[in-house]
Amino acid sequence: MTVPQDDRGLLLGDGLFETLLARGGALEHWDSHLARLTAGCETLGLPAPDGAAARRLCEQAVDDASLSRAAVRLTLTAGSGGRGLDRPAQAQPRLFVTASPSPAPTGPVQLVTVGVRRNEHSPASRLKTLSYLDNVLARRQAGGAEALMLNTAGEVACAAAANLFWVRDGRLQTPALDRGVLDGIMRGLVIARARARGIAVEEVRVGRTALDGAAGLFLTNSLIGVRPVSMLDGRPVEDSPLVALVS
Amino acid sequence: MTVPQDDRGLLLGDGLFETLLARGGALEHWDSHLARLTAGCETLGLPAPDGAAARRLCEQAVDDASLSRAAVRLTLTAGSGGRGLDRPAQAQPRLFVTASPSPAPTGPVQLVTVGVRRNEHSPASRLKTLSYLDNVLARRQAGGAEALMLNTAGEVACAAAANLFWVRDGRLQTPALDRGVLDGIMRGLVIARARARGIAVEEVRVGRTALDGAAGLFLTNSLIGVRPVSMLDGRPVEDSPLVALVS
Repeated sequence: MTVPQDDRGLLLGDGLFETLLARGGALEHWDSHLARLTAGCETLGLPAPDGAAARRLCEQAVDDASLSRAAVRLTLTAGSGGRGLDRPAQAQPRLFVTASPSPAPTGPVQLVTVGVRRNEHSPASRLKTLSYLDNVLARRQAGGAEALMLNTAGEVACAAAANLFWVRDGRLQTPALDRGVLDGIMRGLVIARARARGIAVEEVRVGRTALDGAAGLFLTNSLIGVRPVSMLDGRPVEDSPLVALVS
Repeated sequence: MTVPQDDRGLLLGDGLFETLLARGGALEHWDSHLARLTAGCETLGLPAPDGAAARRLCEQAVDDASLSRAAVRLTLTAGSGGRGLDRPAQAQPRLFVTASPSPAPTGPVQLVTVGVRRNEHSPASRLKTLSYLDNVLARRQAGGAEALMLNTAGEVACAAAANLFWVRDGRLQTPALDRGVLDGIMRGLVIARARARGIAVEEVRVGRTALDGAAGLFLTNSLIGVRPVSMLDGRPVEDSPLVALVS
């Protein structure tokens, strides 16, 4: 399966993607992923995909791969053509899907603060776009660990491939979306789940030092669900019983 | 000509490009473009391409297209594979070239300050990477005009597809590279040309208001060379005789 060399996703990172989990052939949280992709197209000025067709593509990829637990990647590029930065008058997005094995993650992760920063002054910072090089570079800087990314104001934003939560005074805290944070599906689910269980959730704007002494630090994304962080910048992170309540 | 769907340039914007001008079949400033591409590979942690092979690809594309004045785009992706953000242990970059007509630009351009900002806290901001969506969005925000992009500190950086110079008190000024500015080949040539003619050049760190009342505002890139700006945010820009001396 190939894409033409004049595709704007390939040439300019002009497009979006979704990463979904499929278990036993069933796509998890499809409606949320489609809604985010559709909203992202609106932000980028691209026509939204046909939802039913996109879903069929995803289901077909999962079927073909015969995987019990699959990472499904749905990619939407801005399509072919245009001169330099400018899109053609009628952009015709290109959609394709791959499914690959996604073993359930085991054990906690280490998190390391890196130098590459999220750009809260770009609408792309809240979207999963095909211009993801900063995240690739952040992960490289973190070595074998996951990268904690600050935004350009030095505030805590998110991990290279996950959102971030922690517990402070019995409340769950996570960076606010306008701080250069990806609008994660699992992030939204955890917030809803916590509130349904009577746990207060605060979307905050804080510097890196706010994480010193915070308990129950954990990551979220669609593939890993909720995953505790054991070490932050080489220092152990204290557990919190709240984490199990939102997992 | 196609690229596999598992290409990291396509999926993650993991890669680089160069845009060169070819006139009468000859590549302009090849050595500078190759040096920048090689330095960019170093920054991204990718193996540098074979220079002679890359040059042959470019020359072949120009020959095949039979164009007297061609925009040559050399694209280097991080190649296929890897799991999510992480590259495979031995990344094998993919190289391809397209050539398209590039008529000489005529007349001055209008420049409009946009909201999307350059991220001076990312090494990618100095490189022509495949993660170019912010520039696409900036150009869209500028409507039919060219976009003036500030960095996240609110300082003047560059245009969506060009570097920026202006004249102040008989000196040429341009934003310093560490302000989120692409390290343009034509930018470097103009600086060298100016200094060779006894014109002082300052690489500066200034806010948007520094451009109010500046004369001789112009853009540079490999395809347009030196191109005067006639209007900035709807206000006429005064000419300066210095511009002709560095064009």
